[in-house]
Amino acid sequence: MIETILKQVQQGELNIDEAKKKLALYEDLGFAKVDHHRKKRQGFPEIIYGEGKTVEQIISILEAIKAREEEVLITRVTEEAAVAIIKKHPEFTYSEISHLVYWKNQPITYDESKGYIAVICAGTSDLKVAEEAALTAEVLGCNVKRFYDVGVAGIHRLFDQLDAIQHATVSVVVAGMEGALPSVVGGLVSHPVIAVPTSIGYGANFHGLSALLTMLNSCASGISVVNIDNGFGGGYNAALIDRLASKG
Amino acid sequence: MIETILKQVQQGELNIDEAKKKLALYEDLGFAKVDHHRKKRQGFPEIIYGEGKTVEQIISILEAIKAREEEVLITRVTEEAAVAIIKKHPEFTYSEISHLVYWKNQPITYDESKGYIAVICAGTSDLKVAEEAALTAEVLGCNVKRFYDVGVAGIHRLFDQLDAIQHATVSVVVAGMEGALPSVVGGLVSHPVIAVPTSIGYGANFHGLSALLTMLNSCASGISVVNIDNGFGGGYNAALIDRLASKG
Amino acid sequence: MIETILKQVQQGELNIDEAKKKLALYEDLGFAKVDHHRKKRQGFPEIIYGEGKTVEQIISILEAIKAREEEVLITRVTEEAAVAIIKKHPEFTYSEISHLVYWKNQPITYDESKGYIAVICAGTSDLKVAEEAALTAEVLGCNVKRFYDVGVAGIHRLFDQLDAIQHATVSVVVAGMEGALPSVVGGLVSHPVIAVPTSIGYGANFHGLSALLTMLNSCASGISVVNIDNGFGGGYNAALIDRLASKG
Amino acid sequence: MIETILKQVQQGELNIDEAKKKLALYEDLGFAKVDHHRKKRQGFPEIIYGEGKTVEQIISILEAIKAREEEVLITRVTEEAAVAIIKKHPEFTYSEISHLVYWKNQPITYDESKGYIAVICAGTSDLKVAEEAALTAEVLGCNVKRFYDVGVAGIHRLFDQLDAIQHATVSVVVAGMEGALPSVVGGLVSHPVIAVPTSIGYGANFHGLSALLTMLNSCASGISVVNIDNGFGGGYNAALIDRLASKG
Amino acid sequence: MIETILKQVQQGELNIDEAKKKLALYEDLGFAKVDHHRKKRQGFPEIIYGEGKTVEQIISILEAIKAREEEVLITRVTEEAAVAIIKKHPEFTYSEISHLVYWKNQPITYDESKGYIAVICAGTSDLKVAEEAALTAEVLGCNVKRFYDVGVAGIHRLFDQLDAIQHATVSVVVAGMEGALPSVVGGLVSHPVIAVPTSIGYGANFHGLSALLTMLNSCASGISVVNIDNGFGGGYNAALIDRLASKG
Amino acid sequence: MIETILKQVQQGELNIDEAKKKLALYEDLGFAKVDHHRKKRQGFPEIIYGEGKTVEQIISILEAIKAREEEVLITRVTEEAAVAIIKKHPEFTYSEISHLVYWKNQPITYDESKGYIAVICAGTSDLKVAEEAALTAEVLGCNVKRFYDVGVAGIHRLFDQLDAIQHATVSVVVAGMEGALPSVVGGLVSHPVIAVPTSIGYGANFHGLSALLTMLNSCASGISVVNIDNGFGGGYNAALIDRLASKG
Amino acid sequence: MIETILKQVQQGELNIDEAKKKLALYEDLGFAKVDHHRKKRQGFPEIIYGEGKTVEQIISILEAIKAREEEVLITRVTEEAAVAIIKKHPEFTYSEISHLVYWKNQPITYDESKGYIAVICAGTSDLKVAEEAALTAEVLGCNVKRFYDVGVAGIHRLFDQLDAIQHATVSVVVAGMEGALPSVVGGLVSHPVIAVPTSIGYGANFHGLSALLTMLNSCASGISVVNIDNGFGGGYNAALIDRLASKG
Amino acid sequence: MIETILKQVQQGELNIDEAKKKLALYEDLGFAKVDHHRKKRQGFPEIIYGEGKTVEQIISILEAIKAREEEVLITRVTEEAAVAIIKKHPEFTYSEISHLVYWKNQPITYDESKGYIAVICAGTSDLKVAEEAALTAEVLGCNVKRFYDVGVAGIHRLFDQLDAIQHATVSVVVAGMEGALPSVVGGLVSHPVIAVPTSIGYGANFHGLSALLTMLNSCASGISVVNIDNGFGGGYNAALIDRLASKG
Repeated sequence: MIETILKQVQQGELNIDEAKKKLALYEDLGFAKVDHHRKKRQGFPEIIYGEGKTVEQIISILEAIKAREEEVLITRVTEEAAVAIIKKHPEFTYSEISHLVYWKNQPITYDESKGYIAVICAGTSDLKVAEEAALTAEVLGCNVKRFYDVGVAGIHRLFDQLDAIQHATVSVVVAGMEGALPSVVGGLVSHPVIAVPTSIGYGANFHGLSALLTMLNSCASGISVVNIDNGFGGGYNAALIDRLASKG
Repeated sequence: MIETILKQVQQGELNIDEAKKKLALYEDLGFAKVDHHRKKRQGFPEIIYGEGKTVEQIISILEAIKAREEEVLITRVTEEAAVAIIKKHPEFTYSEISHLVYWKNQPITYDESKGYIAVICAGTSDLKVAEEAALTAEVLGCNVKRFYDVGVAGIHRLFDQLDAIQHATVSVVVAGMEGALPSVVGGLVSHPVIAVPTSIGYGANFHGLSALLTMLNSCASGISVVNIDNGFGGGYNAALIDRLASKG
Repeated sequence: MIETILKQVQQGELNIDEAKKKLALYEDLGFAKVDHHRKKRQGFPEIIYGEGKTVEQIISILEAIKAREEEVLITRVTEEAAVAIIKKHPEFTYSEISHLVYWKNQPITYDESKGYIAVICAGTSDLKVAEEAALTAEVLGCNVKRFYDVGVAGIHRLFDQLDAIQHATVSVVVAGMEGALPSVVGGLVSHPVIAVPTSIGYGANFHGLSALLTMLNSCASGISVVNIDNGFGGGYNAALIDRLASKG
Repeated sequence: MIETILKQVQQGELNIDEAKKKLALYEDLGFAKVDHHRKKRQGFPEIIYGEGKTVEQIISILEAIKAREEEVLITRVTEEAAVAIIKKHPEFTYSEISHLVYWKNQPITYDESKGYIAVICAGTSDLKVAEEAALTAEVLGCNVKRFYDVGVAGIHRLFDQLDAIQHATVSVVVAGMEGALPSVVGGLVSHPVIAVPTSIGYGANFHGLSALLTMLNSCASGISVVNIDNGFGGGYNAALIDRLASKG
Repeated sequence: MIETILKQVQQGELNIDEAKKKLALYEDLGFAKVDHHRKKRQGFPEIIYGEGKTVEQIISILEAIKAREEEVLITRVTEEAAVAIIKKHPEFTYSEISHLVYWKNQPITYDESKGYIAVICAGTSDLKVAEEAALTAEVLGCNVKRFYDVGVAGIHRLFDQLDAIQHATVSVVVAGMEGALPSVVGGLVSHPVIAVPTSIGYGANFHGLSALLTMLNSCASGISVVNIDNGFGGGYNAALIDRLASKG
Repeated sequence: MIETILKQVQQGELNIDEAKKKLALYEDLGFAKVDHHRKKRQGFPEIIYGEGKTVEQIISILEAIKAREEEVLITRVTEEAAVAIIKKHPEFTYSEISHLVYWKNQPITYDESKGYIAVICAGTSDLKVAEEAALTAEVLGCNVKRFYDVGVAGIHRLFDQLDAIQHATVSVVVAGMEGALPSVVGGLVSHPVIAVPTSIGYGANFHGLSALLTMLNSCASGISVVNIDNGFGGGYNAALIDRLASKG
Repeated sequence: MIETILKQVQQGELNIDEAKKKLALYEDLGFAKVDHHRKKRQGFPEIIYGEGKTVEQIISILEAIKAREEEVLITRVTEEAAVAIIKKHPEFTYSEISHLVYWKNQPITYDESKGYIAVICAGTSDLKVAEEAALTAEVLGCNVKRFYDVGVAGIHRLFDQLDAIQHATVSVVVAGMEGALPSVVGGLVSHPVIAVPTSIGYGANFHGLSALLTMLNSCASGISVVNIDNGFGGGYNAALIDRLASKG
Repeated sequence: MIETILKQVQQGELNIDEAKKKLALYEDLGFAKVDHHRKKRQGFPEIIYGEGKTVEQIISILEAIKAREEEVLITRVTEEAAVAIIKKHPEFTYSEISHLVYWKNQPITYDESKGYIAVICAGTSDLKVAEEAALTAEVLGCNVKRFYDVGVAGIHRLFDQLDAIQHATVSVVVAGMEGALPSVVGGLVSHPVIAVPTSIGYGANFHGLSALLTMLNSCASGISVVNIDNGFGGGYNAALIDRLASKG
């Protein structure tokens, strides 16, 4: 890359100002450009973390991204901010349960020719986080199958669906309270499991610490963990892996 | 009780010194005497906590108990102390794996006419604690069935034995690492489950904290928890419950 | 069980679709069916955890349960949800102090022919949790005697009632702050003690951590612990044990 | 599957005992068999966790596995146990730095036709954990490239190797102390990053808690975390993902 | 005592019902009576912990106490409850800063013939807790001198008042943030120091944990610690000690 | 100093009352006077910590300081208090983002003849704390250059500005979430780095604990840390160092 | 004081060098001299903290103290150091259980004319810490009565000795595990209670944290707490209070 | 810079390979080169962290550094490693107390023409860490004055030396146990204070956590904190600041 630019300079095909721009700090490094390229190459939108940003900030960022990408995803959006965004940009969708706001230049569909991500959650109280994971992966272009309310306290509910879970490319397992579900799933499947602890519970749950520690200490192999309530992280990691499997 | 004593005093059947003795602090309360009676009534031996006691202290206490009870149980005995105890009292048995030393005036047997306690453990590394629970319950006169190495990472091992587990009076479930096993068992049985977290694991296990929190936060009903590595507590609680069931 | 089905298939008494259904995952395992049976056999209602569920979700679940059970119990119901539930189902009762909503097809009564559960609490601030335990056990069909405000700072209050406590089948001991009461009770009774730490206190109480650790580390035998503020868990465990004792 | 068996029974092709065996608990579930199949299908050996097992236990397990698999991997083996194992089975190799003992029926080689896993570590003190990850992945049949001592305190060392890192299928990033390296790598690559915190450090490192929290809270997307010092987990997760990519 | 009662029974001076009452559980123990006597002997009122009690509960308890004591002290009273109490009992005083409500049958005065308690606090933000300590001690009949805003960041403010502090009988030292003041005071005085950590601070103060640990680890001798924000405990302990010194 | 005073006394140049005043406790020590002198000598205003103070208290303190100093700085002022202060003292300025209220007898300017402090922050959510640091340093008379939103997840943004950062006298690096930025900056500059963890983040961030531990454990040399969200502390420390450099 | 010195200077009775010495920093403050005086006035020896000091350091300090005091007390002395000290100073005594080495110019006796300190401990494992408290108080000249092995699990043992405990001036209550004993004692006595948590216990005891929190959160008034295992602190605080009571 | 290179390429003064090298990753960035320059410019040696490195690794690194620098400093060296290093390189010095090994091409001297760093420590047990700080600063070419054993429990010892402390350029304050000393010093000086918590203490010290929190929460301005026991960090930060002051 650098060689090409230098040759163009040597041969007068490129003037110095242009070359400087191309070789400017992050372009010399190669990673800023890669950053741009990565999005194009991956079909992954730039993600906007909505928490702590004003509606104005969110809107100007999303407009910048929408101008050059095929999807826009904003996480952790308050009800109030979502309404304001959609008022200005009615082409966006607000998912109330997952607090995601997103836009795609084509509808979310299920592509039978590809594999799918299993998003599994233990209880109905964990739905918010599970949906954040599932919808993130769908916006990023993946197929998702949802397996909800299959916690270990009634483990037959899980086994009823085991076959479909085992055929997924990767599982995102969301659980609060004691967070035991990823260990059980991890022992039953041969694909990677992304475990997402939630802060659902009370008392010695300590806002998700209990589920987090459970998942980190899992005796099943093939489990890795993201932050408490980080459904987005679960969905994003799964999408990265699912894309690798499709490309493979 | 007090009335009887007072009437005897009033009627001159009891002199004041005798009455004072009967009304003396713990006898008036009834609980010190009850303490003595309790052991007789329950058929439960007084338990000696061996940690932090000298061999001499242990021996003099065990001799005092053995003089009036039908069993003696000493917990957390070091190898060295066990050898010294058995040298002096060869009628005692040392269980190397559970660090228990005990004596019964009749051998431990399995009484088919009664129910049994299920002692279940997740991995071979938890055996020490599981055996402390199982042997404690046996010394206390209960039937015990052992279900070892049935952790959630290969949950079919548990299901293979599910029927026998479901027929127990009470389960003691011992698990380290993420400690998910009691939740799974608790969802499959209709009897009380005593969960015993162990300190087995590494890293973010934090010496058993992970398993402890998991068990306290279990989404399955009917689970209560004892201290980390407290196999004795698990066995003792189970024996109390099993005895209630037998008496019922 | 499997053998019977197979024989029926072999002898043409059962067609393959019927047999598949009977051998379907959780039926082959026996635990899903057991799940159904368990409730019938135990006389225990399915419990609805109210927290994080919408009023609509709660109502549709309770209607499903009420259709086939003789009791319905919903825990952790907000004032607002309770009003909405009872508006639709005036046959339900709301216990304001314990945040329970329940229905039984017959009134809660005290059955003198059976034993009873002692629900003991340290201070008036712990009443909420103690009542959750007591009422849970009553809805589950147990006798309950309440011993309230008998904390260790004025221990004579406990001794005044010691006799009645000692005659219980099982005790649920609820305490906040330093949580010392279960240790004292555990040293005075010969039945199992379920300890329930509460988050009542301030400063270094750390939302119930202090009481929780106290109870886990109790030097008295026969104590097991449930989650902080988990009055339901205390009552449910006690009911399991009390039922064993009645059946015994 | 069940249907086939039932039809064979119906048609007399299978007697009832054989059918019962095939439908026996875990076979009816399909997961125990899958368990066996999984290893064959995946080319992944069963892993033996060496900690807390006696040399005799390890040897009998490894012999059982070796009889039917093409690789055997034992983790967390002490020097002493390793010597004993290799004395009996000189075909095994002991990696002193990673405390792994393993055997493959063919040498570890680098297969240029496939992608590779980048194992990246921050400091020389993290080598033990990084090597556990790297060698695990190699024994599981993956290509591994090592990028060691590229911590954030001298970030140019990382950039020097950025190109090779960016071309990996998946990265395992091992770091102790403040554990910042995965965030930096995660921002520079478009593939999944498995972060492995180590307990290297002192003072407020709290045995790896610092690095663990750093990694869980990473502001870069695409990072998931395994337990402290769990190099094996890092390598195993990476191998699962790398295999997906190869199969893709 | 018991002897006297028995003699009276023997001599017919006391009938059995009266005697039973006197010997009733806590009277046999001697501690319940002592409890009553203690208050009279000590001139200490029974303290009502206001938190978590309804206004009605508080009022009925305070009326019971006021009927037989010369002071009533209620701690942790909300503004709202205080207004309601004083509306009904205008003879009570509400200290807004310390959230105490109290009544004495004689005004709080400073008795020059006795020693005094030094209540020392680090910053103006700690005033609430310091006043709770000071006023508690005053209601309990002690002299109090206040030394406020003398934190270690400007230690000359402390030295200006050192002489008066050194002449106190006992010091209550209240501090938030890093809580270093008790150590400095403890090194300068020869009387007991009661340290009261407050939750004042932010960030790594962790709601008073920082100050609590500082005080527990003080390198100065003669310091003991009460709970975070427990001004009442500080004042009460100091009053106990000051009373001993006066009686001495 | 003492000698001079004594000589003046000896020679009758100073009467005893005057001498006593000069030798009075904190003046004998020299530190109280120094305290006064220090502010004059340093050009540093006395700082008012606004949290937990009433508007009246703040106003009377600021008037006292303003009477003798050239700047007044009040930290952690609520919106409401700020409005009240400025109503009375319209010469004061309220910085909404940093919650600082301040007054200087001359405008904040950038003095090209001196060095500057780099205030660097990772994300837009950390702006509040970064501005508290930057404005504190400016009120204290230092030059400040701001480098915002240069977090490690897109590290090229940092490198783009590296040259300007490297030329600063001292850096204040503000970061939440995993707090990795100070380590990266610390490895790239040769001046002292003051790291300020923020409580920005969620889940296992634990209100800034994650970032705090990261910074304390930094593998880069030359980093010291202040309390969570303590932007003021970061700015004040930097100003002390910057002043040393200017004086040098 | 200062006035006197100044007058002497003015009148030529004191030269400037002498005056400077008298007014030198700590003498002007009065506290260094007080430090010396304090020991004489109190009859309290200077205490040597033995941990982390070499035998040579300890010996030279004890010789300096012994030259001017009537007692010497050294805490936390290893067996090895004790032997070396006593070899050189055979007039010293080593208490093996409490790790104290001490010397008094007259034997420890019990003075019937004075009050006494009650040192109470829960279990035999807490003896080490209890003896450190008891012996410290005795070396400091107080009467001590020991009440050992009276933990709450068999509370009648405590009541048997209640009368003697209630007559003490002050109690030191030592307890490990759940640490409930101080709460029970605090509810039964009218004098100050110094609570000493010990690290005795296992599992969720977390090296004494459990007992520490219990004691800090005690619902009984009149309890203050010292550091974990700080028997010396317990004894020293009790001695300060006991001395006040004697002087009173 | 980039422009110059491009122009040289354009004008044929530089061939493409040479230009590529100059524009290669870290050289384009300028920071790797800066890294080299930094050491020369600063006169600061590269520091070797000795922990977890073999003697061979240490020796080869020190030889590489010694070849081009004027000082070499190795931290956290074990006795055993130190002996081996000095055997091979007798020109190195081992400081037993601080576990540093170092070499300078000229002796450590005190340069009266420059300012000095005050290294202050609370107790003799903190000496190890204080010496690590002091010697680090000396090896880095700074003047150091030591003020040892001046903890807050006898604060006059600090005041005796206050003048000398106040004249330092920067203070490093080392303290264990409650860690209060930096707050006191910070309130008395007008220069930056680097606080170093140590793990000295017991019980609720929690291996330095107590002192660490104290220092982070200091109410005195101008204090920043390094990791527990990180004497090196304290000395290094102080040296950075002291150098700024000298250059200023």
